Amino acid sequence: MKEIRVIGLRISRDIKEGDNLSEIILEALKEENLELLDGDILVITQKIVSKAEGNLVNLKEVKPSEFAKKISKLLDKDERLVEVILRETKRIVKMDRGIIICETHQGFICANAGVDQSNVGNERVSLLPKNPDFSAKALRREIKDLTGKDIAIIISDTFGRPWREGQVNFAIGIAGLEPLLNYRGRVDSHGYELKATVIAVADELASSAELVMGKLDNTPIALIRGYPYLRGRASIKKMIRRAEKDLFR
Amino acid sequence: MKEIRVIGLRISRDIKEGDNLSEIILEALKEENLELLDGDILVITQKIVSKAEGNLVNLKEVKPSEFAKKISKLLDKDERLVEVILRETKRIVKMDRGIIICETHQGFICANAGVDQSNVGNERVSLLPKNPDFSAKALRREIKDLTGKDIAIIISDTFGRPWREGQVNFAIGIAGLEPLLNYRGRVDSHGYELKATVIAVADELASSAELVMGKLDNTPIALIRGYPYLRGRASIKKMIRRAEKDLFR
Repeated sequence: MKEIRVIGLRISRDIKEGDNLSEIILEALKEENLELLDGDILVITQKIVSKAEGNLVNLKEVKPSEFAKKISKLLDKDERLVEVILRETKRIVKMDRGIIICETHQGFICANAGVDQSNVGNERVSLLPKNPDFSAKALRREIKDLTGKDIAIIISDTFGRPWREGQVNFAIGIAGLEPLLNYRGRVDSHGYELKATVIAVADELASSAELVMGKLDNTPIALIRGYPYLRGRASIKKMIRRAEKDLFR
Repeated sequence: MKEIRVIGLRISRDIKEGDNLSEIILEALKEENLELLDGDILVITQKIVSKAEGNLVNLKEVKPSEFAKKISKLLDKDERLVEVILRETKRIVKMDRGIIICETHQGFICANAGVDQSNVGNERVSLLPKNPDFSAKALRREIKDLTGKDIAIIISDTFGRPWREGQVNFAIGIAGLEPLLNYRGRVDSHGYELKATVIAVADELASSAELVMGKLDNTPIALIRGYPYLRGRASIKKMIRRAEKDLFR
């Protein structure tokens, strides 16, 4: 029987800059009487990674540019928040009806360049981790050192999508797994050769994890057990469609 | 502990027009010594729903239009396949580099209007179910009648996404659950009120299910147990962004 377990891990305290996330994750597992196994996957929300890395900005300390001021009026947004969003942005994809869709420096396309006011408090905003792959790889190595277990790490964030209502969790940083499962050239039971089927398993794993995380109940980590992922050293860049291949640019 | 189990259910034979899917699903559960519980979710791939509903087209019987012939040369695709795609299409979103991105009559935006050659055989192609909500609701009612259990049904298909490599599973028909989880107006532990957070849980559930389904191992059904969904009578139309709200039209 193919079965995957997706388990939410609570953290009872607020994460602060400099906190050791790998130790906090292992404590959270211990609280649930769980021990890591080889082949487990840990999905971790971007928010606690950014908090531990000190990747927050206090809006009180932000001086908005003239352009940020102009845009903030157009979009009816805090001009300091707009300034932070513009700093995190490589390219503005769309800007209308109160929304800025940005391409971030990391290459993700999302609202507000991933700058987020929730779950940080005190007029602060969180930015996306500067290099989410690097953060994921460091966590994976630390957990390997502490436990001896060979696991995969996915750092996730919730983004909106064109055409569909609602947001879903996406992978924004990975370590230890191949994010795409390629069926091209494989043959179905009727002899038909699959031509275009590549499944974005890292995104599907991130989405599964969101179902046990929620936004308001201090569950920023999920353990996924039983999914036979392909081990690999790929970067999340493999999941970002290259501009010249993308019909939507 | 918040835990979700995602279990793949195999079907050992090919689904034919007129097959009773609810009975086949219950047999597949029995094979695994599983009994349905109230609150379970069954995710079912579009392919077996379309097969049971006889929603297949034999390409040998398709007479392509002049427009289909012209497009098939441009895109280097079978002209009969292009004809079927055009019949299933309400609006062509993009057409380039061998790819037709269509809005289907049901309102989904996907490559080839959901017309698919895999896992059907014999020069046939499968179409999306004509009314996936109706199919889901009928299955839910039949399973309720057969077992007495109140469950949710999601019919799924794998679609590509702009900007990202790889496809993921989406919900295309639902019965018994609210597909969106709305956090708007709720307050985080720092007192910040969430403004724009609506999670597309039906899509995340569909994505979770794909991880145990695969494309080539006769596992077209997944049982999801332990996810506390909101019961509801919503249509999948609730997940399709209205044209006037969509920045990407």
